[in-house]
Amino acid sequence: MAKNITISVDAMGGDNGPEIVLLGAKMSLLERPNTKYIFHGREDELKPILKKYPELEAVSEIRHCDVVISMDEKPTQALRKGRGNSSMWNALQSVADGEADAAISGGNTGALMAMATFCLRPMEGISRPALAAIWPTLRTEIVVLDVGATVGADAQQLIDFSILGAAMARALFDMKEPTVGLLNVGVEEVKGLDAVKEAAKELSSHTGGGYQYHGFVEGDDIGKGTVDVVVTEGFTGNIALKTAEGTARQVGTYLRTALTQNWVTKLGALIASGGLRTLRNKMDPRNANGAVFLGVNGIVIKSHGGTDEIGFKSALGVTYEIAHNRLMDRIKNGLKRYEKSGVSEEHDDDKKNDEVASA
Amino acid sequence: MAKNITISVDAMGGDNGPEIVLLGAKMSLLERPNTKYIFHGREDELKPILKKYPELEAVSEIRHCDVVISMDEKPTQALRKGRGNSSMWNALQSVADGEADAAISGGNTGALMAMATFCLRPMEGISRPALAAIWPTLRTEIVVLDVGATVGADAQQLIDFSILGAAMARALFDMKEPTVGLLNVGVEEVKGLDAVKEAAKELSSHTGGGYQYHGFVEGDDIGKGTVDVVVTEGFTGNIALKTAEGTARQVGTYLRTALTQNWVTKLGALIASGGLRTLRNKMDPRNANGAVFLGVNGIVIKSHGGTDEIGFKSALGVTYEIAHNRLMDRIKNGLKRYEKSGVSEEHDDDKKNDEVASA
Repeated sequence: MAKNITISVDAMGGDNGPEIVLLGAKMSLLERPNTKYIFHGREDELKPILKKYPELEAVSEIRHCDVVISMDEKPTQALRKGRGNSSMWNALQSVADGEADAAISGGNTGALMAMATFCLRPMEGISRPALAAIWPTLRTEIVVLDVGATVGADAQQLIDFSILGAAMARALFDMKEPTVGLLNVGVEEVKGLDAVKEAAKELSSHTGGGYQYHGFVEGDDIGKGTVDVVVTEGFTGNIALKTAEGTARQVGTYLRTALTQNWVTKLGALIASGGLRTLRNKMDPRNANGAVFLGVNGIVIKSHGGTDEIGFKSALGVTYEIAHNRLMDRIKNGLKRYEKSGVSEEHDDDKKNDEVASA
Repeated sequence: MAKNITISVDAMGGDNGPEIVLLGAKMSLLERPNTKYIFHGREDELKPILKKYPELEAVSEIRHCDVVISMDEKPTQALRKGRGNSSMWNALQSVADGEADAAISGGNTGALMAMATFCLRPMEGISRPALAAIWPTLRTEIVVLDVGATVGADAQQLIDFSILGAAMARALFDMKEPTVGLLNVGVEEVKGLDAVKEAAKELSSHTGGGYQYHGFVEGDDIGKGTVDVVVTEGFTGNIALKTAEGTARQVGTYLRTALTQNWVTKLGALIASGGLRTLRNKMDPRNANGAVFLGVNGIVIKSHGGTDEIGFKSALGVTYEIAHNRLMDRIKNGLKRYEKSGVSEEHDDDKKNDEVASA
């Protein structure tokens, strides 16, 4: 039988309030019954909502706190105001205290990253955390990091991101050795890429880190799904992610305009509506919701602040999967293997630990 | 009557040989009859093709040379091999010598940028050139630079790019003061963005540079068309451009799959084919072909190497427009105005010069 997973939830995070958070949790519970929840937030707001979902109430606990971090607070302000007493901090604290397997918040991204770093502390051997997105591609979903935790990265940090991202891909997609590509530009002999070049040299000379190093990839390789994990520094990663979101919306708008231009195209669209629905599902950003904050001592998931219950449910799904598949152990194995470098008989560490864990 | 524009063409550049180059020129000539061409390349290859298009032949000249730069040569190799004697170099030399208004090549991007820098020399007051893309958005076409000329940019270089990009937007879209946005990430208090922050400070304190500074924009603002000119350094710009191309292709593939999933959707697609054709045109990368290499003493256009005659015709259209609208003067005006900073009665320099030029 599968082990229970306890998820600690910042129930006040996000633009749409605790209603969508709790409704999302109720929906997720139907798919993953062995989940328990700790909801952090204002009891007077949460209790009446939870009352509506008895099956959720049965596996949930409310932890009251008054302070809520707003979406526009700067990370330093948020830390001053909410350290030790806000729904966001307390959600993380439950992970730090070992009573929850993972924390999730739809709140202020910068504040969450700052609080996660303070509350859970950076992992040993990782100098800087990264935010990893799950990116739908033509082949399958892939992991792209860093999408905005920090700006710039030296070679060692790009290597760290490779190990972190590969561990996340192993946990999320149940694969043994995901392929890793370093994002680069195609123009030859461009100067200034010392960090990327040095990281490439290091990555190709090591084996055993729980991934296969593929080489450089370019921007258009992301959508193709050329590799399982795309690694870059946070400025470029954030721009790439938002540019792709913008382009998908742009093409969607073109399509709507094209199909409503006259009654003939409207009729055609009506007849093809089954196919267009498939397309809409494929392009629904709610289905790819949930970024993972990697490199701290605990699992932290960022849900999109503007999402609804469907989107929050998706993010809870990601949270469950990587907690259930022991992300933290996989990262530690990746780091250990990388240190040993080349010891290929260690490749089954993930598996071994899983067996120990579920024993 | 409009002044004749002479375009110097690297007729050997690109993956698809001189056939598509000359056919594209023939097609472009129909739209812009006051064009003259100088084709650089192997006479024995070019002459028979040109013979097929007598109307093109009448306004064209072939300049023979043997050396052709291949698509996979490194810039330094290309310079060694083709400096002073290749179709690419000679196309640029015609601009340097003042016998052509602009040069165009579909060849090796890195080689073209290196040769353009050597042959035409960087403009006074511009420390580094940039490659600018014309980007279709939901609002209109916009200019995005740098999309890969160099990696990294300090504050002064970002300001230079703003002036260059704004001048290009004025020349290409016939606007007086395009809005300029600096590409940035949304996360608050992220460290490491000193160049972007400093450039923002400078840009907002100056007026009169031939643009309106809008502020920071994020990746998804590109597709929305929030500003007329998006400025960033070359690594991020290149990744953003290719990521967008990849995403557009991805969504296109989703759409095709969705509309061919069964006979009902196929029927619907057939009926809506008029609308889908509009969409296909909107998304056709050939219509947005032609990047501009800015910051050297002359107009240099890079056509996509893999394009066909339709794409090459588009790039020739861009070449014609920015030559006809006196891009170089507009850049000089932008630089001069920026130096003077705030002298708003100088805003009509572009116009005045145009009048002088066409007198």
